[in-house]
Amino acid sequence: MNSEWTLGAITRRLAEAPFQRFLEIEARSVDKELGQVEFMLPFRTGYARAEGDDQVHGGVVAAFVDIAGDYALAVKLGYFVPTIDLRVDFLRPAHGTLTAMARTVRVGRNVGFVDVDILNASRLLVATGRGLYTTRRG
Amino acid sequence: MNSEWTLGAITRRLAEAPFQRFLEIEARSVDKELGQVEFMLPFRTGYARAEGDDQVHGGVVAAFVDIAGDYALAVKLGYFVPTIDLRVDFLRPAHGTLTAMARTVRVGRNVGFVDVDILNASRLLVATGRGLYTTRRG
Amino acid sequence: MNSEWTLGAITRRLAEAPFQRFLEIEARSVDKELGQVEFMLPFRTGYARAEGDDQVHGGVVAAFVDIAGDYALAVKLGYFVPTIDLRVDFLRPAHGTLTAMARTVRVGRNVGFVDVDILNASRLLVATGRGLYTTRRG
Amino acid sequence: MNSEWTLGAITRRLAEAPFQRFLEIEARSVDKELGQVEFMLPFRTGYARAEGDDQVHGGVVAAFVDIAGDYALAVKLGYFVPTIDLRVDFLRPAHGTLTAMARTVRVGRNVGFVDVDILNASRLLVATGRGLYTTRRG
Repeated sequence: MNSEWTLGAITRRLAEAPFQRFLEIEARSVDKELGQVEFMLPFRTGYARAEGDDQVHGGVVAAFVDIAGDYALAVKLGYFVPTIDLRVDFLRPAHGTLTAMARTVRVGRNVGFVDVDILNASRLLVATGRGLYTTRRG
Repeated sequence: MNSEWTLGAITRRLAEAPFQRFLEIEARSVDKELGQVEFMLPFRTGYARAEGDDQVHGGVVAAFVDIAGDYALAVKLGYFVPTIDLRVDFLRPAHGTLTAMARTVRVGRNVGFVDVDILNASRLLVATGRGLYTTRRG
Repeated sequence: MNSEWTLGAITRRLAEAPFQRFLEIEARSVDKELGQVEFMLPFRTGYARAEGDDQVHGGVVAAFVDIAGDYALAVKLGYFVPTIDLRVDFLRPAHGTLTAMARTVRVGRNVGFVDVDILNASRLLVATGRGLYTTRRG
Repeated sequence: MNSEWTLGAITRRLAEAPFQRFLEIEARSVDKELGQVEFMLPFRTGYARAEGDDQVHGGVVAAFVDIAGDYALAVKLGYFVPTIDLRVDFLRPAHGTLTAMARTVRVGRNVGFVDVDILNASRLLVATGRGLYTTRRG
């Protein structure tokens, strides 16, 4: 097993990548065999839709979906790949700290498909997304 | 004409809304009649895909699409509305400062549709998105 | 319980609606409480991507996703609603008779979200889609 | 110039491909340089949402988007390619004979992006879609 794709390695990588560090995303679990990750996004005032509120802006949620999806596929493939297309559906207002459950659905020769559920602290589904990523290396 | 939806008012609003301020988005033009806005996202190191590079992370691009689309519809409607669904296609690596051209395509009784093109400093199309937003008030 | 939303009633409705009849879609199960349906699309030569092959054209798959999603939400709501937006991801070539498993994910005040998995006769996932539908009546 | 990608050749191909023939799609114009096609879908009673009405079912519209998008990219590439992902937004009820204006937006090394507008006989935009297709041969 590649040591680069353990929970500790993913945690270090999130801390080094500029935008992931900017968002302060934390890794909670990583499953290399299934191509799954669980990430956490602690609430920060800068993510709010409105001053003094803890509803997270949809743009933050979309970025979180993209990142979690990308890592889920990367742990499966063993390398990072660019996003082709991202879709996010907003089911309910997303308040407070959020969790992303990202699950690789299919790794094709050219394209990988990942489903990402976004849950609030009560484990209620607040948004759901799908990312398509190139699977060819380089 | 409602003074709240001028370029100056949109600029103030972007400066006050927590996540828009976090991203430091700037308004360039606003067309209330057509439901269009042109926004700029100056490059910051925190947006980079990798340390020392100026390629903007897809998650930033997705957030930029959502925000520009939301404002395009808001200037048309006269009030802000929540996003139902967001889709972004990534056509080319997005380097440096980006511009969003958001254009309301259709305002239905329940749903509004907005197209958003993301251009780089050379005015090359690097990503394109569509946002669906609730149009009913409250 | 409304007798209009039983398996028998859905079967009759599929036989009466022009496009559903055109496609010869069959209902296999209906769950009114959960907002779920299982539909079958027996292979016909007119659905083929190429003469003499049994690979179903993506356009047929997309139509099947839309219809199954619409019925899943209709059995839950008790009335039929128009599609706002449809997305289909094609994971593998879709050969022969197909099954749609449609499941209502969320019924909001304005919008309902439905996930649809398309399986082949070996129960392998060949495509997956999501439909957004208006939930307001009339 | 390849004679296979003229309007006449596309017309013959539409008549030979099982599902395209099933839908009775007609080619109106083909632009090989730009990767654009204009297709027509004459109304048939089998496409209707309801008996006696001429509103075309969303599933037919989705299939029409997929086919027109596929041909727009094929005339540009010189070969047909499989759909990765399809999205359709339904802006207004689609009555009567429909026209698809499909335009290749980007041909990448792995993926091609095509926009498709669906117009009614009054040239009003009733639906708009985007298809992603593999661009690698074989």
